[in-house]
Amino acid sequence: MGDSEREPGAPDGAAIGVDVGGTKCLGILWSDGAVVAEARRPTPHEPMAVIGALIEVIDELKDGRTATTSIPIGLGMPGLVTRQGVVRASPNLPEVVELAVGDLVSARLGRTVSVDNDATCAAVAEWRAGAGRGAGDMVLVTLGTGIGAGIVAGGSVIRGTQGFAGEIGHMVVDPDGPPCPCGQRGCWERYASGSALAARAAEVLGDGRPWTGEDLARSALDGDRRALGIFRDFARWLARGLANITNIFDPEVVIIGGGVARDAALFIDDARTDLAAFVYASQRRNLPRILVAEWDERAGAVGAALLADADRR
Amino acid sequence: MGDSEREPGAPDGAAIGVDVGGTKCLGILWSDGAVVAEARRPTPHEPMAVIGALIEVIDELKDGRTATTSIPIGLGMPGLVTRQGVVRASPNLPEVVELAVGDLVSARLGRTVSVDNDATCAAVAEWRAGAGRGAGDMVLVTLGTGIGAGIVAGGSVIRGTQGFAGEIGHMVVDPDGPPCPCGQRGCWERYASGSALAARAAEVLGDGRPWTGEDLARSALDGDRRALGIFRDFARWLARGLANITNIFDPEVVIIGGGVARDAALFIDDARTDLAAFVYASQRRNLPRILVAEWDERAGAVGAALLADADRR
Repeated sequence: MGDSEREPGAPDGAAIGVDVGGTKCLGILWSDGAVVAEARRPTPHEPMAVIGALIEVIDELKDGRTATTSIPIGLGMPGLVTRQGVVRASPNLPEVVELAVGDLVSARLGRTVSVDNDATCAAVAEWRAGAGRGAGDMVLVTLGTGIGAGIVAGGSVIRGTQGFAGEIGHMVVDPDGPPCPCGQRGCWERYASGSALAARAAEVLGDGRPWTGEDLARSALDGDRRALGIFRDFARWLARGLANITNIFDPEVVIIGGGVARDAALFIDDARTDLAAFVYASQRRNLPRILVAEWDERAGAVGAALLADADRR
Repeated sequence: MGDSEREPGAPDGAAIGVDVGGTKCLGILWSDGAVVAEARRPTPHEPMAVIGALIEVIDELKDGRTATTSIPIGLGMPGLVTRQGVVRASPNLPEVVELAVGDLVSARLGRTVSVDNDATCAAVAEWRAGAGRGAGDMVLVTLGTGIGAGIVAGGSVIRGTQGFAGEIGHMVVDPDGPPCPCGQRGCWERYASGSALAARAAEVLGDGRPWTGEDLARSALDGDRRALGIFRDFARWLARGLANITNIFDPEVVIIGGGVARDAALFIDDARTDLAAFVYASQRRNLPRILVAEWDERAGAVGAALLADADRR
């Protein structure tokens, strides 16, 4: 499990990675720099059933492969994940509280597994084998229900003292802003996440039905001016948070991931323009490159595999 | 000069460090874990005169010490300092623009010197020989005219790809807030710096005269209710920014430095209380310890010496 000295190994090793999301557990078998097999299960609500689903995914990926008996196994978990592999709490898995995922899966498999936060895993996938290859300082921002971040600084993965670094969605960008389920007001994810997009669509485009970010993207691609306006505002709020990140980390690359990244064509150019206007002393520095994640929904699983492989070396 | 692999050496080496501030150049000779000599000069306005003052301080510290011919020399410079030792711009030294401090001082001395941002140096002083001893994840926040930060994460000093990490005073905490000389609105340093305290004092306590943070502290210590109220609001804004920092870095320790830290007794307990209310999921985690810097005005010089010593090893 996490320790600050280890670094993700070369992406040509072999490992299993499983990413537990709010709706599905997605596992991959990584070998020679590529995903060679995939398995998925719906994510159960009940904590021990989550462990069961994880084991099933791992078993399916190992099935019939004789070389997999000692293959490294890594898990990406959402929420506050300690460096000892305990999920303290997870907004997307409300019944999972203080669950010792690392110990429980290790006991079931009879061997140790690596456990990290899912956004940290996704950042490692992009860093070692995706859009951030070669960067020494990189931040992956995942735009989904909320906003998460995985951070690479000075060539190392940053986890924080307990493992909780990167909870960037709860950076307050306006103390008088809209209330967040976390208890604060004006958290960045109230403006620049997928759920922020959906909420704004329901507010502006109305007609009483629930909206998703995908619906909104379809309207925007169809040329609906109000939908395009929502994405324009979204780009500005995204850039506000990215400017704070740039002022704090001075990264070479910022990668946009999560479900919203699939519609990046609708906002990324505006976000780049606004970022240049918002960053401190931007005329005296290079701005980070703002790129779209390459690994889409597999990012967490790929990164979990790469971290597990690194742990074994 | 800066590279991400080096780490500050053991604090028992010997080195010279000089910190260039807006009003003075303060140099120290570090030996066996202590400051054994000090020299200072007023900081000139003209860029080449700044280089001259630096050389004078170094010469005075070396004077008559035969063992100092090859002693490591480190410089702490304010503003945007590149990893090649160039000061791109500095709010406190308006005439210093694109000044290659590292090369110029090295040429004058006939040997290489280390150059880092002053807040980075101050963080190293506290980390290796001050309030942050032993912490793997630590953020030093300097509260002065503006707000700077030096960051240690995962046991390494974080500088960013160009050397500009830690410009945390320009984290926007309210896009509709008061204008900042940087061109944005609602930068954190408009609420939680020494100049923010002074501006608020002039606004609330009035009487037409200019106020300093020290004047305000005196009034508060005399029991003036309005002055105490200003410090109460200050603590809340300080905590807002520290909560963002905690969400992002999950540090073990946050150290408050800079001139305002001398009056920490007037706000630090309130800031701790507010921090607990503002941090994401604070009931499920340990909060960082909030400590006052130990090195006061010598922090930058001590850290510059420790970094120079590390560069030589």
